[in-house]
Amino acid sequence: MNNTPKISDIKSAHERIKPFINKTPVLTSSYLNKLSGAELYFKCENFQKVGAFKFRGATNAVLSLSSDELKNGVVTHSSGNHAAALALAAKNAGTKAYIVMPDNAPQIKKNAVADYCGIITFCKPTLEARENTANEIIEKTNATFIHPYDNEKIIAGQGTACLELLEQITGLDTIIAPVGGGGLLSGTSIVAKANSLQVIAAEPKNADDAFQSFYSDKFVPSTNPNTIADGLLTSLSDLTFSIIQQNVDDIYTVTETEIIEAMRLVWKRMKIIIEPSSATVLAAVLANKEKFKNKKIGLIISGGNVDLEKLPY
Amino acid sequence: MNNTPKISDIKSAHERIKPFINKTPVLTSSYLNKLSGAELYFKCENFQKVGAFKFRGATNAVLSLSSDELKNGVVTHSSGNHAAALALAAKNAGTKAYIVMPDNAPQIKKNAVADYCGIITFCKPTLEARENTANEIIEKTNATFIHPYDNEKIIAGQGTACLELLEQITGLDTIIAPVGGGGLLSGTSIVAKANSLQVIAAEPKNADDAFQSFYSDKFVPSTNPNTIADGLLTSLSDLTFSIIQQNVDDIYTVTETEIIEAMRLVWKRMKIIIEPSSATVLAAVLANKEKFKNKKIGLIISGGNVDLEKLPY
Repeated sequence: MNNTPKISDIKSAHERIKPFINKTPVLTSSYLNKLSGAELYFKCENFQKVGAFKFRGATNAVLSLSSDELKNGVVTHSSGNHAAALALAAKNAGTKAYIVMPDNAPQIKKNAVADYCGIITFCKPTLEARENTANEIIEKTNATFIHPYDNEKIIAGQGTACLELLEQITGLDTIIAPVGGGGLLSGTSIVAKANSLQVIAAEPKNADDAFQSFYSDKFVPSTNPNTIADGLLTSLSDLTFSIIQQNVDDIYTVTETEIIEAMRLVWKRMKIIIEPSSATVLAAVLANKEKFKNKKIGLIISGGNVDLEKLPY
Repeated sequence: MNNTPKISDIKSAHERIKPFINKTPVLTSSYLNKLSGAELYFKCENFQKVGAFKFRGATNAVLSLSSDELKNGVVTHSSGNHAAALALAAKNAGTKAYIVMPDNAPQIKKNAVADYCGIITFCKPTLEARENTANEIIEKTNATFIHPYDNEKIIAGQGTACLELLEQITGLDTIIAPVGGGGLLSGTSIVAKANSLQVIAAEPKNADDAFQSFYSDKFVPSTNPNTIADGLLTSLSDLTFSIIQQNVDDIYTVTETEIIEAMRLVWKRMKIIIEPSSATVLAAVLANKEKFKNKKIGLIISGGNVDLEKLPY
């Protein structure tokens, strides 16, 4: 597609957002290396501001606005990490973020947005209500709508995590990223392919719309996803699907049990808190050890926003 | 005391153990900086091998043995992190670690020692039984007893965490470390004082024997400690008490509520898993904000070994 970001766009995005983001560390675990038979490098976006890679894309999108657009603020109707990320990115840029949230969103998510001074408008928990409410805000305020992944600036921003990883660790063979809406995977895959690396996506079996779309070569929407990996519920967009078709080598699906076990292993052995969506990448390695044997693998750990009161163990 | 390690001993220890230990990262949190009004640098020994700083001291103690001593192995009767650390240090050095454990020790601790090939001997859960059992092993095997903190090589090893921190971050004003038996605090305080820094200890109010000893200038043993910070239950030794009296500027005690809240904040905001003992240092800062205002503070995060099935929230 015409608006597919190029590697140069991702490099520009990185320069643009550098003063605002955390350069997150890359961690390793000798235990998990032994267990997997591979060399694993975890790019820890759980240590990113707002606790997720989403802050990279949101910051790039906000900083790419013209000064006129910037004055009017930004709008989104995501209720997850993207909403908090956009709120903080807007705050850092001295403008407003209007966040449309379903009135039944968990308190923890409302608080995250409010903490970063996002202006919340509640609506009924349907896609129609969310879109209508966002449109009303746009009419009133002229704010710019920033989609969580169907947006080239967002995709370019998310790709900077992989760009940083390749600066930090040389000689990688493979990059693995989770796939939900496909923003992170798209950005990651553009960087990886520009460096001739293999790109694998990890997806919950219980929300395998990307897997189905990828292997049937036609868009399959996400219907009734039922997974603990709550960051991976959404469907691809035309843009992300097209980028993924072009760049990604394989999509591996993982079961709920595999996700929970991988998450437990990372918490216990690496002493870091990752969200279930992030655990899919390690789960994919552990369920396919033969394929990854002796490879040097970069795993994008997407975030660490977990409700500590509601653990699966 | 004559056997008090000098800063040169700690530097030698660092060179000795470097090939075996993790150089742990130093993390920061803009949220916790704002909350505390200070600049906080977390030295993350929760990312150390076996999940705690104890591996530094154990490795130094094992590698300081003569080749004859090394052949016969090492013994200890700690059941916590020191036991696992000594087991791995001995394994790395190609020798045996005999670990005496009370038969009622939690399964998770037995597993940790067994994972590192420690040879476990169970005994009744009394100090007398533990000492007798250890002595029997020493008679039979000629193994060297390695006390968890009343040992100059252990103290020198523990001090290397602070040494590394000062290489990683310049311009610190203050170092804060937790105090249990005092091995970590002793080593830390020697390094800090050699660099003219303020040294503060953090201790649970419900296990405040170091606080009482320090301010009464006479040794007070730990009696019936009742704290979630299970790494800080033991009494000081003559050696650690003397080093602490000489070097430490203040000991701050913190309540159970303060420890749990500090732990929750670190998990939630920094996305790292720390054990309650480690949370005492942040709790001490948050309970004494005025004293630390605008200071640049190094906090020694001692470990991350928490039973994930038994969280306080």
